[in-house]
Amino acid sequence: MARQQHEHIVKSFDEQLKSVNQQIARMGGLAESQLASAVEALVKRDSDLAGRVVNADTGLDNLEHDVEEAVVRILALRQPVATDLRDIIAAFKIASDTERIGDYAVNVAKRALALNQMPPVQPVYTVPRMARLVQSIVKDTFDAYVERDAEKAIDVWHRDEEVDEMYTSLFRELLTYMMEDPRSITPGTHLLFIAKNIERIGDHATNIAETVHYLVTGEYIEGGRPKGDTSSYAVMEPPRPDEDGNGGDDE
Amino acid sequence: MARQQHEHIVKSFDEQLKSVNQQIARMGGLAESQLASAVEALVKRDSDLAGRVVNADTGLDNLEHDVEEAVVRILALRQPVATDLRDIIAAFKIASDTERIGDYAVNVAKRALALNQMPPVQPVYTVPRMARLVQSIVKDTFDAYVERDAEKAIDVWHRDEEVDEMYTSLFRELLTYMMEDPRSITPGTHLLFIAKNIERIGDHATNIAETVHYLVTGEYIEGGRPKGDTSSYAVMEPPRPDEDGNGGDDE
Repeated sequence: MARQQHEHIVKSFDEQLKSVNQQIARMGGLAESQLASAVEALVKRDSDLAGRVVNADTGLDNLEHDVEEAVVRILALRQPVATDLRDIIAAFKIASDTERIGDYAVNVAKRALALNQMPPVQPVYTVPRMARLVQSIVKDTFDAYVERDAEKAIDVWHRDEEVDEMYTSLFRELLTYMMEDPRSITPGTHLLFIAKNIERIGDHATNIAETVHYLVTGEYIEGGRPKGDTSSYAVMEPPRPDEDGNGGDDE
Repeated sequence: MARQQHEHIVKSFDEQLKSVNQQIARMGGLAESQLASAVEALVKRDSDLAGRVVNADTGLDNLEHDVEEAVVRILALRQPVATDLRDIIAAFKIASDTERIGDYAVNVAKRALALNQMPPVQPVYTVPRMARLVQSIVKDTFDAYVERDAEKAIDVWHRDEEVDEMYTSLFRELLTYMMEDPRSITPGTHLLFIAKNIERIGDHATNIAETVHYLVTGEYIEGGRPKGDTSSYAVMEPPRPDEDGNGGDDE
């Protein structure tokens, strides 16, 4: 530790910046693996793995803390300007979004632990499809960061719309399922939140893509953010068991 | 606009910092009022008000953007150190959390719009109690920021536990309600997410309280964050209508 401290002092500005960039890349890798493990724990009903995801979260928290400290130190001692300043500000923002991705992965793992105490429900198999898409978005976002690739950032940014659409359709599927069988309400609710958590991970990846674009070009991505999630507005009625029913007999 | 631009150039560093602080205070006021209006729209089933909350969100987005630009400008031109640097970093972080609070308020308003298209459900009256607590936490958090009061920040930080407990109990109440009557599943789900949004607003207020404490003292709040929300682990069974029932008759 003391040796690292010393190294920080003698490091050149470029080395300091490179070290922050590497910490961000490491955070990205950790967030990706947390998400993958949380989804695997859900699908395979593996409570041990879910527990490991919950416990591993301090790793990301600590890394975010380290990045913040490094950023403040660099700002205070090096007073960077222009591109270097943008790089430092971007690191600060991306560390925060990445830590949030980790938090959502942990929430998926916690809910997987709860679901493992109940009989399996069908829609659990639709979640991984959405999760795979989000995982690939998270991966490409960090690739865009490492490669300083603004085009890739824009590409990732657009793909969030697909996540939102999948979430909205999953939301409806889960609600239908819950209406058909009251025993599926508790697991269904956990799955609703799991889907929401994964959708939120997509949002944070989109934030990171925006930051990468700003970092590389100095410009914000043009146009409003694509929005495909309309589930907040969803109005659904439970299926009527009898088409001739007057609808008032079970009040 | 041109005049303001000019003022920025001739402003002293203290004036620039004061202007950022005022922008944050303004963001806080706007976030508070967005939350209050969203909850009012929910309780009074006022779709006009809910629509106004949704439309007003760009105000907070723009303010966050302004704060970010001001922070980057100050860092580049003034290269602040020590307390001033902490002040600038704090503004950057608080602006981001405040914008998120606004997003959650908008989501409450959107779901209020959906709920207004369905018959009213009972648990809608439990949500405002939780909302009032969170509103007071948000208010006190921004008071702590404006007054640079680290003690108040710690006080606010501890109160988030109460929010989490209320959320967990509301979560169980809503699930019970949904199990009793399938027609309440759609509104119940929207209320679950509304409750979650309000709980998340409490989390972001807690983040801001942590930042205020760091800003005033240069130290992080000691001890792990209090955690009262155990709803992720909730395992609930639907009530059995008949104690003698074999539980398999509705398959």
